Amino acid sequence: MKLSEIAGIIEGKIEGNADLFITGIGKIETANENEITFISNPKYEKFLDTTKAGCVIVTEDFINKKNKVSSLIRVKDPYNSFLKLLEVFEINEDESLKGISEKSIIDKSAEIGKNVYIGSNAVIENGCKIGNDTKIFPNVYIGINCVIGKNCKIFPNVTIYRDTEIGDNVIIHSGTVIGSDGFGFAKQKDTSYKKIPQTGNVVIESNVEIGSNTSIDRATIGETRICKGVKLDNQIQIAHNVVIGENTVIAAQVGIAGSTKIGKRCMIGGQSGIVGHLDICDDVVIGAAVGVSKSITVPGIYTGYRVRPYREDLKIEARIKNLDKLEERIKKLESSGK
Amino acid sequence: MKLSEIAGIIEGKIEGNADLFITGIGKIETANENEITFISNPKYEKFLDTTKAGCVIVTEDFINKKNKVSSLIRVKDPYNSFLKLLEVFEINEDESLKGISEKSIIDKSAEIGKNVYIGSNAVIENGCKIGNDTKIFPNVYIGINCVIGKNCKIFPNVTIYRDTEIGDNVIIHSGTVIGSDGFGFAKQKDTSYKKIPQTGNVVIESNVEIGSNTSIDRATIGETRICKGVKLDNQIQIAHNVVIGENTVIAAQVGIAGSTKIGKRCMIGGQSGIVGHLDICDDVVIGAAVGVSKSITVPGIYTGYRVRPYREDLKIEARIKNLDKLEERIKKLESSGK
Amino acid sequence: MKLSEIAGIIEGKIEGNADLFITGIGKIETANENEITFISNPKYEKFLDTTKAGCVIVTEDFINKKNKVSSLIRVKDPYNSFLKLLEVFEINEDESLKGISEKSIIDKSAEIGKNVYIGSNAVIENGCKIGNDTKIFPNVYIGINCVIGKNCKIFPNVTIYRDTEIGDNVIIHSGTVIGSDGFGFAKQKDTSYKKIPQTGNVVIESNVEIGSNTSIDRATIGETRICKGVKLDNQIQIAHNVVIGENTVIAAQVGIAGSTKIGKRCMIGGQSGIVGHLDICDDVVIGAAVGVSKSITVPGIYTGYRVRPYREDLKIEARIKNLDKLEERIKKLESSGK
Repeated sequence: MKLSEIAGIIEGKIEGNADLFITGIGKIETANENEITFISNPKYEKFLDTTKAGCVIVTEDFINKKNKVSSLIRVKDPYNSFLKLLEVFEINEDESLKGISEKSIIDKSAEIGKNVYIGSNAVIENGCKIGNDTKIFPNVYIGINCVIGKNCKIFPNVTIYRDTEIGDNVIIHSGTVIGSDGFGFAKQKDTSYKKIPQTGNVVIESNVEIGSNTSIDRATIGETRICKGVKLDNQIQIAHNVVIGENTVIAAQVGIAGSTKIGKRCMIGGQSGIVGHLDICDDVVIGAAVGVSKSITVPGIYTGYRVRPYREDLKIEARIKNLDKLEERIKKLESSGK
Repeated sequence: MKLSEIAGIIEGKIEGNADLFITGIGKIETANENEITFISNPKYEKFLDTTKAGCVIVTEDFINKKNKVSSLIRVKDPYNSFLKLLEVFEINEDESLKGISEKSIIDKSAEIGKNVYIGSNAVIENGCKIGNDTKIFPNVYIGINCVIGKNCKIFPNVTIYRDTEIGDNVIIHSGTVIGSDGFGFAKQKDTSYKKIPQTGNVVIESNVEIGSNTSIDRATIGETRICKGVKLDNQIQIAHNVVIGENTVIAAQVGIAGSTKIGKRCMIGGQSGIVGHLDICDDVVIGAAVGVSKSITVPGIYTGYRVRPYREDLKIEARIKNLDKLEERIKKLESSGK
Repeated sequence: MKLSEIAGIIEGKIEGNADLFITGIGKIETANENEITFISNPKYEKFLDTTKAGCVIVTEDFINKKNKVSSLIRVKDPYNSFLKLLEVFEINEDESLKGISEKSIIDKSAEIGKNVYIGSNAVIENGCKIGNDTKIFPNVYIGINCVIGKNCKIFPNVTIYRDTEIGDNVIIHSGTVIGSDGFGFAKQKDTSYKKIPQTGNVVIESNVEIGSNTSIDRATIGETRICKGVKLDNQIQIAHNVVIGENTVIAAQVGIAGSTKIGKRCMIGGQSGIVGHLDICDDVVIGAAVGVSKSITVPGIYTGYRVRPYREDLKIEARIKNLDKLEERIKKLESSGK
């Protein structure tokens, strides 16, 4: 694709060779002469000295010091332009991911939609319904009575327990487990524990993406629900009866304990933990590795090992840093008193 | 089932319609007219205004303000009554989970007990023994010379490495890996690492339940042992040569490093970490996200990023919160001295 | 094997019965009369009173109080001697792990080297290349166009997404996922998120070992790279475009966010987290459960919930512990001023 075509797609102004032929997108550190790259985060400007990229997408007010960059395209938002181009150059999915493998194992009672891909060794149990255009990769297990919507992608080695309901356009990455038993036991007099039956299910609404090796437990009664548009990263733990509100985004290794409800449009940083039976309201931003042990009722940013509003947390942190100065002031007072 | 029958099972007193027909158990928020629910945690009393449940199980001294609840059953312990009913109404396991699938792959030398279910694509290597009434779901892998007891359930996509020993009534959820190599390497002079052979195994005693995507490594020498009645949640990491004592319960995302021994009847909160070569005595309760770097020799509750006895931790936390007041007192002293 | 032969292998001096027949290696707590054990960590000397081991490997200057140990071998470094013996007594891998199972599913276009083992139900998609002597266990999935080197071991239920490149002598344990999509979404005006295509891949260089249930995401563009000799434990999260330098060792449950670069010969303790777009220089040691939110440019040891150089962290910790004394000093000043 010529640079002039690319400039058209991203509505930018070329400086340099409009006829340059571009074959793909590269990172600024490693792009070659036929690749285009971009600068959005100033951290990466240091690579302008050494990049071999054929063209760099920059902001409209970018100053091309010493003409470091030979060809550039000026746009309003380089990052968005980069995203657009990613879609243009995206690898086309392999045409072999089509049809139903003879080596898949599908119960006769299952209803399979049109244009569905089911890979080898995938197991689909009785009573399942699979919507049109959905792709189920090899070695996936789908338990009894699951319903999966249209245009989903279930990657290899995913396990979906019985009675799970999944909407449209849902993506689930490998190793993820949906619908395993919630962690519920009743202590007996002899100090042993008796299993509490987990009779509920998991509901995943449309447009949800779930990373790899994530666990979502079924409800004790009722349902564990992941609402429309939620994005979950890898290795997240969602306990029984949790509800995650629409368009909430959760980073890797977060754990959410039983029956907690998370609002809409929240963002939760990696490795944070939220204890059970809490309510987190809409529009809450929780940092990384935060320990949340109380409900949050006011939107805002929250951080810290023991969660606090961000500014309060910063103040306490500053005070801890200054403890040595505090001690010096006490020493001074003590010696002046003598 | 009629309400009168249910009242008989849970030994409670009905107020309302004893002939009401109940078809299942629901959560107070979502139960319908033919479902029964319960109130145990006062947090949930707010839902009494809006619940559509046909009947609510309450404590003996519950006050039915404004007759919010139409039918109720009074019992000593509503939560225990709920647990009893869960068992009554539990979904019966599908009858299709029977027999040995033609599409399973079982070595001729393996000994399979009576009434065993082995699903499609399950692989059972040579020298294995599987006890009576055990269910092995599709896509499970069981390595050479494993012994699995009676009445176990091994859910889809579980991996059990060679030489693992598993007792009776053990449940292992999907994605869990038992017996992978311990993390042991010897540093070489050229700064590379050489693998230390992991020649031991994993022993899981009877009545253990293990959640999804948990990892239990085999021992370097000897064994990694999970004792009778232990309950492990999802995404737990158990390193080589760890021993977990009887009836200990561990929440999700906990990590226990190599050769550490945990006592009996301990409870460990989610995301906590315990470093290697420690001893944790019996009856220890560790909070969530606690960092344990020393052995614990006294039963009790322990919390904090750097583990402390609970009360001590609370005091330190209170002092940190009051640092601003401390500074004000110093300011006062300073200004009074002038 | 006779004790005299063992002493020859580890270049040690026997005291006791040189003809004793040794059948294996045991832990000091549980070894029997025909097993050899060792003492390296003084913590374990307490077991000398009760061990039944036939022989104990000790340091050259070990003092055999009250002749507790009947037979011993004195060496310079008992731990290294133990490692040598582990290799001598290592279980030989089962001879059945040979050849290509008729029940594996291998695309015709795949190139399979000599002496390769491919287990039942393993799926190898089109365009893959598998090097000589590599072992691929049952239920593994290898996507389109993957290249795997010589003498690798890919354990059961591993998932490798398309276009992944893996060097020689790489070991990947069960449940691990290589090449799932990076976690990238662009926020839309209606507060929903649009998926950013993840068009890069994962490159794993030679001599890398990866534990169970670990996740390594593919790059948005370019590659996520795990360099030569890196050792990753279980349940580690490596986000898109991360680079891990040669011979770096990372313990279980660590999370590394997108585009961060880790240097060579680093050691990262369990449950630590590193935010995105950082640089960690060579030879950095990070403790357990450390939160790293800034780049590290100086080699050394770093610890704490908010990462600090180790000594600084110790000082702050000591000051927090002494807050009560600080308050007492203020009280004294206050009362003396009255």
